[in-house]
Amino acid sequence: MLRAMTREFVYGIHPVRELLRRGVRPVRGLLIGRSPKDAEVKEILELARARGVEARIVGRDEIERRAPGGNHQGVALETDELPALTVEEALAQPGLSPQTIWVGLDEITDPHNLGAILRNAAAFGASALLVTERRSARLSPLVQKIASGAAEYVPVIEAVNLNQSLRLLKDANFWVYGAAAEGKPLDSVRVNGPCFLVIGSEGEGIRRRTRELCDELVAIPQAPGRVASLNASCASAVLLFEFARRLGTLAGGPAK
Amino acid sequence: MLRAMTREFVYGIHPVRELLRRGVRPVRGLLIGRSPKDAEVKEILELARARGVEARIVGRDEIERRAPGGNHQGVALETDELPALTVEEALAQPGLSPQTIWVGLDEITDPHNLGAILRNAAAFGASALLVTERRSARLSPLVQKIASGAAEYVPVIEAVNLNQSLRLLKDANFWVYGAAAEGKPLDSVRVNGPCFLVIGSEGEGIRRRTRELCDELVAIPQAPGRVASLNASCASAVLLFEFARRLGTLAGGPAK
Repeated sequence: MLRAMTREFVYGIHPVRELLRRGVRPVRGLLIGRSPKDAEVKEILELARARGVEARIVGRDEIERRAPGGNHQGVALETDELPALTVEEALAQPGLSPQTIWVGLDEITDPHNLGAILRNAAAFGASALLVTERRSARLSPLVQKIASGAAEYVPVIEAVNLNQSLRLLKDANFWVYGAAAEGKPLDSVRVNGPCFLVIGSEGEGIRRRTRELCDELVAIPQAPGRVASLNASCASAVLLFEFARRLGTLAGGPAK
Repeated sequence: MLRAMTREFVYGIHPVRELLRRGVRPVRGLLIGRSPKDAEVKEILELARARGVEARIVGRDEIERRAPGGNHQGVALETDELPALTVEEALAQPGLSPQTIWVGLDEITDPHNLGAILRNAAAFGASALLVTERRSARLSPLVQKIASGAAEYVPVIEAVNLNQSLRLLKDANFWVYGAAAEGKPLDSVRVNGPCFLVIGSEGEGIRRRTRELCDELVAIPQAPGRVASLNASCASAVLLFEFARRLGTLAGGPAK
């Protein structure tokens, strides 16, 4: 599917560094608004030089204009928005295996949660993140900053409809897990790959129709007598770590 | 130690509800700036009534004034700041056991991280959180909102000096773990309680002198080839879950 590319300014040390390192997006300009002698900036300048990108030393106010209100750390890079795949496109790509983990978000609207979940996905080797077109946080430069460069590593799937996507995934042999307090305790759940893990919003959790489509609901055991639930990104960290550990895909090999 | 109490306005549905439910702080006034018929507000009004607290229905702008810029959800409650313990006071309290987990933060300055770590501590049954007086985020109403009511459940220890505190904790039989990428992989670490888990800031990690005082450094295994590190609160979720699981303190009993 052809989509028009929109330009954007990615900002912050980690996002800019990983964008240059990973090299999947065009670089249309690099702006440095602090001392080029700082170690972190030096590294970015070297990566830029290696890619033939010219850096322009500018005033901090010019960076401000490109990243209004953002914690830009004096660094901004003009590039194209990350392309999003459709479910069909993602399923058509090679590489699906019993070790595959994908993550899907049901109406996560908080950019902090989206950014942190993207970062967890990268850290624990999930190879795609599915979001819905509507009622989701956008993959904005703020989210990319919170994701600390992980946006370059985890392809994003944009779906019109989550439930319809789950049906396609199940047809493609994915086992669909949903994070839910009323689910089976994590320790008693069998992890079968390829896995698709759905994380719901904190207020509502996963919506009923989506829950019904899950092959299995999984709960993270907590201390007894505590009413507290987990933040969506922290829940995703525990589940992704445990899934990857069981599938044997973390550094150091299979879990004991 | 006697300390002067400062009043503060706690805001948001979860923090206010848990404050009323838990009942460890005085309630000086409850302000409701939305329909008292909403289910969440009704529950808060019932909890307030049971404690003999009168609620005042006010305009939303009055809540705004008490919680400037906060996501107050139309609810604010005047109370005293949470009292902080010294390390000595915390160690003098009963209840330390081989199942005890405490968490310590080394210069975590981001309120989102502090709030989320507090929430993880409550969820996984950690019974104290140590922060340093200086160079740490304050336990502000914002942090309490992010902690979603967990601040009422996890006593906070305020230490003048983290390293000196670690020495006192080690004398009191705590085994001190530090989260660090260069540590031993989580699966090969033996968890001995009472445990004290140190989480460092994202930029710098745990400082060198503090690292040297840890009995053991522990790393969360990640997918190979990923440069991404974890967000401090997500790292704490994985470690606290795994520690509590090994100590057998989660609902459902010991891990299999």
